[in-house]
Amino acid sequence: MASEISPQESITLIKANLAEVLNPEIIDDVILTQKRPLKVYWGTATTGKPHCGYFVPIIKIAELLAAGCHIKILLADVHGFLDDTSKAGWERVQLRAKYYEYAIKGLLKSVGVDLSRLEFVTGSSYQYSKEYTHDRFLLEHQTRIATAQKAGAEVVKNDGNPTISGLVYPLMQALDEQYLDVDAQFGGVDQRKIFTFALENLPKLGYKVRAHLMNTMVPGLGEAAKMSASDPDSKIDLLEAPDKVKTKLKKAKCVPKEVEGNGVIAFVEHVILRALALKKDHDGKFTVERNDQEPLIYESAEKLKGDYAADILTPQLLKAALTTHLNAILAPIRAEYDASPEWQSVCESAYPTVVVEKVKKVKDKGDPAKRAAAALARQAQGKTAVPVEEGVEKLAINDAP
Amino acid sequence: MASEISPQESITLIKANLAEVLNPEIIDDVILTQKRPLKVYWGTATTGKPHCGYFVPIIKIAELLAAGCHIKILLADVHGFLDDTSKAGWERVQLRAKYYEYAIKGLLKSVGVDLSRLEFVTGSSYQYSKEYTHDRFLLEHQTRIATAQKAGAEVVKNDGNPTISGLVYPLMQALDEQYLDVDAQFGGVDQRKIFTFALENLPKLGYKVRAHLMNTMVPGLGEAAKMSASDPDSKIDLLEAPDKVKTKLKKAKCVPKEVEGNGVIAFVEHVILRALALKKDHDGKFTVERNDQEPLIYESAEKLKGDYAADILTPQLLKAALTTHLNAILAPIRAEYDASPEWQSVCESAYPTVVVEKVKKVKDKGDPAKRAAAALARQAQGKTAVPVEEGVEKLAINDAP
Repeated sequence: MASEISPQESITLIKANLAEVLNPEIIDDVILTQKRPLKVYWGTATTGKPHCGYFVPIIKIAELLAAGCHIKILLADVHGFLDDTSKAGWERVQLRAKYYEYAIKGLLKSVGVDLSRLEFVTGSSYQYSKEYTHDRFLLEHQTRIATAQKAGAEVVKNDGNPTISGLVYPLMQALDEQYLDVDAQFGGVDQRKIFTFALENLPKLGYKVRAHLMNTMVPGLGEAAKMSASDPDSKIDLLEAPDKVKTKLKKAKCVPKEVEGNGVIAFVEHVILRALALKKDHDGKFTVERNDQEPLIYESAEKLKGDYAADILTPQLLKAALTTHLNAILAPIRAEYDASPEWQSVCESAYPTVVVEKVKKVKDKGDPAKRAAAALARQAQGKTAVPVEEGVEKLAINDAP
Repeated sequence: MASEISPQESITLIKANLAEVLNPEIIDDVILTQKRPLKVYWGTATTGKPHCGYFVPIIKIAELLAAGCHIKILLADVHGFLDDTSKAGWERVQLRAKYYEYAIKGLLKSVGVDLSRLEFVTGSSYQYSKEYTHDRFLLEHQTRIATAQKAGAEVVKNDGNPTISGLVYPLMQALDEQYLDVDAQFGGVDQRKIFTFALENLPKLGYKVRAHLMNTMVPGLGEAAKMSASDPDSKIDLLEAPDKVKTKLKKAKCVPKEVEGNGVIAFVEHVILRALALKKDHDGKFTVERNDQEPLIYESAEKLKGDYAADILTPQLLKAALTTHLNAILAPIRAEYDASPEWQSVCESAYPTVVVEKVKKVKDKGDPAKRAAAALARQAQGKTAVPVEEGVEKLAINDAP
């Protein structure tokens, strides 16, 4: 697709569907004057299993690939490791990085874009280098605590007593632009202050400023009506079985006639419609089947939102249609997983599950390690499969009197 | 000397003349049970030229060497570089590290201790390593900003808007204990919170705790009566000419009968008397010559302070006696410098001087680079030698209308 697109079309597609672009002239210069692919970086920490929420940035990345960009995906394994600093943590985070690579490729393939200009880079491959470390020393030396706190305010978790890492991450994200040798960084608009920090600080180290592409913030699809955000059932996995997708979408919050902050509408608008537009083998239309009437067919989000506000398109109809479309997108990912013993093996090691049964009482409830051991011992007879980390928590909950 | 000393004498000398020792049982265990030299680290950032104030920690290090310890002196060149991040900064800081090695060896030799167990390590030799960087990531992740700020409160400069470096330094100082593979760290009692931070945090990384030896804080000798602290004349250089030592000491603040906070008394107590006690070829006595009377002779600080409080030992007498004793200690350092073209060459490159004359007016006063260039151009005919950095400042002052 990249070869079929004109430079001007490429620039238009790169800047499309974004909340904001900083220094757009850098993009124009690379494509029109330097006449080479724009190098764009997007970073993700390799922590939990990527779920359908990842479609939101991935669709933009698909558009960038379709526009002929060279995409560098930073698999931030150092950050991922710091989320799980257990003894097995480093080994596991490497497996998770591998899993992320499979998942992201799967997501992009499902949209049908060419992956020849897609590159994966782990943070650990350069964030321990002498040069990077030296630049980190310099940036730490010239950056006020208050400045770094402001830069990370919207992204870094702050429990009122934050750690030094949160100050260092915005600095690293700036340095990553230099060390990944890109022209632009892509991220959510919540990254804006981190991006402007990079703009202000890279030149102080003698490095050039980059363009910044910012995605709109989209309400989560997984935000279920009456479930807590940490409930594993509120997220739809990339490898979710079709009937599970249906069940989970049924539970998803979707207030009738309310378009603002509606995660289901947002997902259709920002993922499904744009994915359909990218697909060459599809008519690009979002079809809503109805029992006794003609199907509703949408090519634009505006029309769809209008119908939803007017209750012509009800939550039930919308969810059913999304189930069909989402399952159609997920099908090739699932198929690839099923056909790949390597991916399956990585999955099992990166995200091991223990099977636990609901227990009435565990005597050694004071010791999480003993609880975890007990959970593993119950694996054979158990019924509920939960991730190891959550398994311990679950047991702790079951332990409560 | 180390071979002549008994284990118990060694332990006594190690713990002598200190404000506080944390975990002294570690020292006892190494010497009495493990029967090996205690490994002690002391760190210094390689910035300005070491002056006579360095005698205060150096005398304790001399005692530790005399007690048979293995001393590792960390020449903190990374920290030194961050103090001067100019283009030539890194090269210069390496030369400064070399200069510090010459100076510290000179200081220790002047006291006459055996240097066979003295080792110098530059920070850059391991603080860029992958292992160290990884541990720094971990410590940054587990350390609250507030905790690091408290740890560094007495040592790290705080202008009300501090940088991230100040938070990272206490973490590095903890890691240095592990990476320098020592049993103990030595420093001023102002380092106490940094030391307890290390005690609390190294075990979290799986590393053992170290003993901490803390020196009393001693009022500066260079604190001249009517000069600013930044005045170069207020510090006595290690290579100072004898008559200059006399002049500078004459100017030093030394209130009659006032013992508390008296830098001259403190220097005699904590440097001269202890240096004399270590010297094998000296009777260990501090002699104060008087014109028409018998000399006053001191072996202990108590007697000296009593006489000073009673005005038997006047500031004039004390200063004259200190001049004699200090010049005697400095003489071999100066002699070694004069005999060493290598040290002289390092000195010239590490601390270059420009000779400037007082100028009435410089037209390009808006541009510091031009002013510096002008200063260099005037080198040939000039009269006053000042360090380059200060040279620029001096000219700026001269530029004022």
